[in-house]
Formats: sequence, C-alpha cells, structure tokens
Amino acid sequence: MDHTPFIAPPGKKIRLANYDPAFTGEFSGKKDAKKKLEKGIQQLAKYQDILYADNRYALLIIFQAMDAAGKDSAIEHVMSGVNPQGCQVFSFKTPSAEELDHDFLWRCIKALPERGRIGIFNRSYYEEVLVVRVHPEFLQAQKLPQTTPDKGLWRDRYEDINNFEHYLTRNGIVVLKFFLHVSKDEQRQRFLERIEQPEKNCKFSLGDVQERAHWDEYMQAYEDTFIHTSTSWAPWHIIPADHKWVTHALVADIIVDRLAALNLEYPKVSKEHRQELLKAKEALESSE
Amino acid sequence: MDHTPFIAPPGKKIRLANYDPAFTGEFSGKKDAKKKLEKGIQQLAKYQDILYADNRYALLIIFQAMDAAGKDSAIEHVMSGVNPQGCQVFSFKTPSAEELDHDFLWRCIKALPERGRIGIFNRSYYEEVLVVRVHPEFLQAQKLPQTTPDKGLWRDRYEDINNFEHYLTRNGIVVLKFFLHVSKDEQRQRFLERIEQPEKNCKFSLGDVQERAHWDEYMQAYEDTFIHTSTSWAPWHIIPADHKWVTHALVADIIVDRLAALNLEYPKVSKEHRQELLKAKEALESSE
Repeated sequence: MDHTPFIAPPGKKIRLANYDPAFTGEFSGKKDAKKKLEKGIQQLAKYQDILYADNRYALLIIFQAMDAAGKDSAIEHVMSGVNPQGCQVFSFKTPSAEELDHDFLWRCIKALPERGRIGIFNRSYYEEVLVVRVHPEFLQAQKLPQTTPDKGLWRDRYEDINNFEHYLTRNGIVVLKFFLHVSKDEQRQRFLERIEQPEKNCKFSLGDVQERAHWDEYMQAYEDTFIHTSTSWAPWHIIPADHKWVTHALVADIIVDRLAALNLEYPKVSKEHRQELLKAKEALESSE
Repeated sequence: MDHTPFIAPPGKKIRLANYDPAFTGEFSGKKDAKKKLEKGIQQLAKYQDILYADNRYALLIIFQAMDAAGKDSAIEHVMSGVNPQGCQVFSFKTPSAEELDHDFLWRCIKALPERGRIGIFNRSYYEEVLVVRVHPEFLQAQKLPQTTPDKGLWRDRYEDINNFEHYLTRNGIVVLKFFLHVSKDEQRQRFLERIEQPEKNCKFSLGDVQERAHWDEYMQAYEDTFIHTSTSWAPWHIIPADHKWVTHALVADIIVDRLAALNLEYPKVSKEHRQELLKAKEALESSE
C-alpha cells in the first residue's frame, strides 16, 4: 500500500484541513480493511519474533491524538497478535511531582524499549508542545529557568525533540509516529456514546468536553508540530480516524512495512556453534 | 580566580601536552590552596541550600579521568560540606546487560539530578567515546545496527552528546565537566602506593596496569573529545591533577563560581502568604 498520502512531508507547511478524517484510502470497504488488518496482525507477530531474535533494533511507536480519536482501540486491535514479552505500552498522563522535577523528556526516556522490543507510547513527550502549548500555564509547574516563555521555547523544544529522535534512530531505535486524525463531529458523536452507554462511562470526563472549546488551538499546535518535527528519520503519519477500521488496517500496514524495511534476520548459526549443538544433542541422547 | 587557562576552548584544536598536570595556577602553595578549598566548601554548602530552595536549576557535575587521577578523592573532599539530601553521586562502571540493551545515554539519563539538586557522575556517557574508542571491540556488545563502525560513529556520538547537553541546559540542568589531568609518572607512583599500602590494595586491579599500555591512545581520545564536545553551553575543564590540593581547590572554586552566576534566590514570600503565616502563628499561639 502506498503510504505517501499519510506522511507529513518533512520541512513543509501543511494544513490539517487538507487531510480528510473520513478518508478510506485504498480500502474498498470495511470488510476489505478487516481482512487486511488480519493479515497485518499475523505479519506483525512474525516480524516481532525476528526483531527479538535479531536483537539490533527496537521499535518505538508514538500515538498522539485528540480525545476519543481511538488511540486505545488502535493499540488493542493492531498489537493483539504480538507476544506481550516483546511489547510494552506506556501511557503518559499528567506528570507526577517527581516527573516535573526532571527535564521534560526524562519520564519518556526511562520507558524506552530495549533492543529487540516494541515500545508503544500512548501520548508522549509531544504533549509538551501540544497540551502545554494550548495551556501555557502548565509551564509554571515545570519551573523552567526562563520566567516568561516566548516563541523561542517551542522552537527549542522542536529542535531538542528532533535531535533526540535522530540520536535514537542512529542507535537502532526506530521511531514511528502516528497522529489519529478525528473530526470534531465524530468526537462529539463518540463522547455522546460514552455518556449514553453505561459501560463506556468510565472513559468520559467533563474535562474532555471543556477541551473541545480549544479545538482550533489544538489543530494549530498539531500543525506546527508536524511542520517542525516531521523529519526524514522520524516522519509523522496523519491517519484518518473517523472510521476505526481504516485507522487499524492502515496503522498495522505501516508498522509491518517499517519492520520489513529493516531487513531483520534470525541470527545465523556458525559452523562451530552448529557442531556444539550437535554434541549437546548426542550428550542428551546418550544420557538418562 | 581566572578559570580561562583550564577551559578547553569550544571549537578549537587543543593538545593535552600543552596542559601541565603539575601546574599550580594562582595558588601560592599547598597551605594557600587548602585555605581556599575550605572557603569554597562553605560557599558550596550555602549555594546548594539556595539551589534547593530556588528549585529552578539542577547542577550536573561530570568527572572523567585516567585511573588514579583522583576522581573519588575530589568528590569526597569538594562535596564534604554539602547536604546529602540535595546531592547524589552515581558511578558508571561496565554496563549491565539491561543497560547494553538500551541506547548509550539511557543509564545516565535515568540518573539525572532533579530540579534543585546537584548530581555527580563519576565517569559518564563520555566513556562511550573514550574507553569504547580505545577498545572498539566493546561496541559489539552494544549490537548497533551498523555492523562496521567507522569514523562517522564517533562524530555522530559527539554530535548527539552536544545536542543532549544543549537540551539539558535549556531545561535548567547546568552541566559542568571536569577532566582530571594526571601525568603518566604520577599515575605510576599512585599505583605503586596502592600496591604497597595494604589499606589501598582494594583500589587496585591488574587491569589498571594493562590500560597504561594504551596511554597515548587514551590521550588521543580525550583530545578528540574535548575538541568536539567542549561547547559554549558545557565547556570542558582540564584540571591539573598531579597535586591533589590543586585539583580540589580548583574544582571547588569553579563549581562555586558557576552557581554564583545563576543568580539563585530564596523564593520571595508574597504579602498574602506572609499574612497566612502570621494567622497560622496566632492560631498556634492561642491553641494548647
């Protein structure tokens, strides 16, 4: 599948209004997408096994989105076939006092995946240029040396994030970034479901509705983030999120393609090691 | 005291041969240096208290050196007056399996000081461009994606380290880097002492002598490191280390000066807060 339409082109201005949240891409319909998702899940399980055995790379998958865009559901559906021993999911919520006492990348760096593993960030350090940008009053709790944060602060954060991700990729940690692009209407619909269906009540809080008032500011913060942090080494993917079946199938396909491009291999067994294995086999067979 | 002679000038070539390990700087003698060290220790304790109360900055102090150059002793003597609650020392030895499974900065980032605190790294991520450069075979255990590391690998590491330290300083973590510059002769002398004095035996291992064979390669690796990672935001200090009294007094003076330059302040009590405090006082006084 061609993923170009979903990539924020590095170094270029984009307008989110030009990305349709209801776009269905190359999928002919829900059934087709579900079939492709199933195939993707199988391939993902296979690649993850080789990733683990190959033990040179780690895969970091970052999900960012507005509330109710489907991050949890995407993680659940796409990663369902993967061995949990090789996959860790971290959700980053309001930072703790200990986290606020450190630099803003600290809590995410602690949670980085080990070599051979897939790490998933449900929200991430990008919150530092998203929710914090929309609510600059949150900066006060970070007690930064600059007392009056100006435009330079965000530029510095973009640059620091780019440098950090460059460092990661140089050291074998592949960074995949997904923005689940839901429309304001669809969010409203999903919020109403969360209120009307008792089993979904726990996913809803009043604050979620208040944040809708800042929708345009969020879109502006996301656009700025994509313009400044979609890089050749870690581009942003803007994934249509009004149809969950599109989101899931597309995300799975992009992850599988990225892993395939790594040319992962099961470690080759040397002649010497092969002979040791055969000796061990003999010893086992002739013992009780 | 003028520290310029001890700073590796950012962006310039240097030769360690031009830095005298037995230099005594502005100190008129051992007695003078000890007096200045005592004053430095007192000032350090004072500044640390304000650093803690001010709660905007953290201070990261990195020590790198050849064996027996006096890192442990410098940390012990210079930091002796500091409240241990506001100061953490981390020694980085041979990386563990878990550490090797992460990117090379990971174990050091986990140990970064919190806001308001002093963190001391006894060795650091600089080992990645020092001991690992002298012994490139250590890279194998890091299982990097590149199978044949070339010159570009060290350049990338220098760049990543610079970017990382830039990020830290932008976020209120001041980075102070000290290289304790001991001569090969003085090291030999100290090794002999460690062998001859039973109470110092535990500080000596045979491997230390073997590393002496790589002395020139280490000096080359240090020079390259200073040339590439002495930056305006985190310059390297090359501290004469043949006389420990020089080392201690000089390191203390540089730390004190750096803290002084931060213009730290005890948080001002607002009128409202002052009135609350007075009310609390009244309540306490009129209660049992």
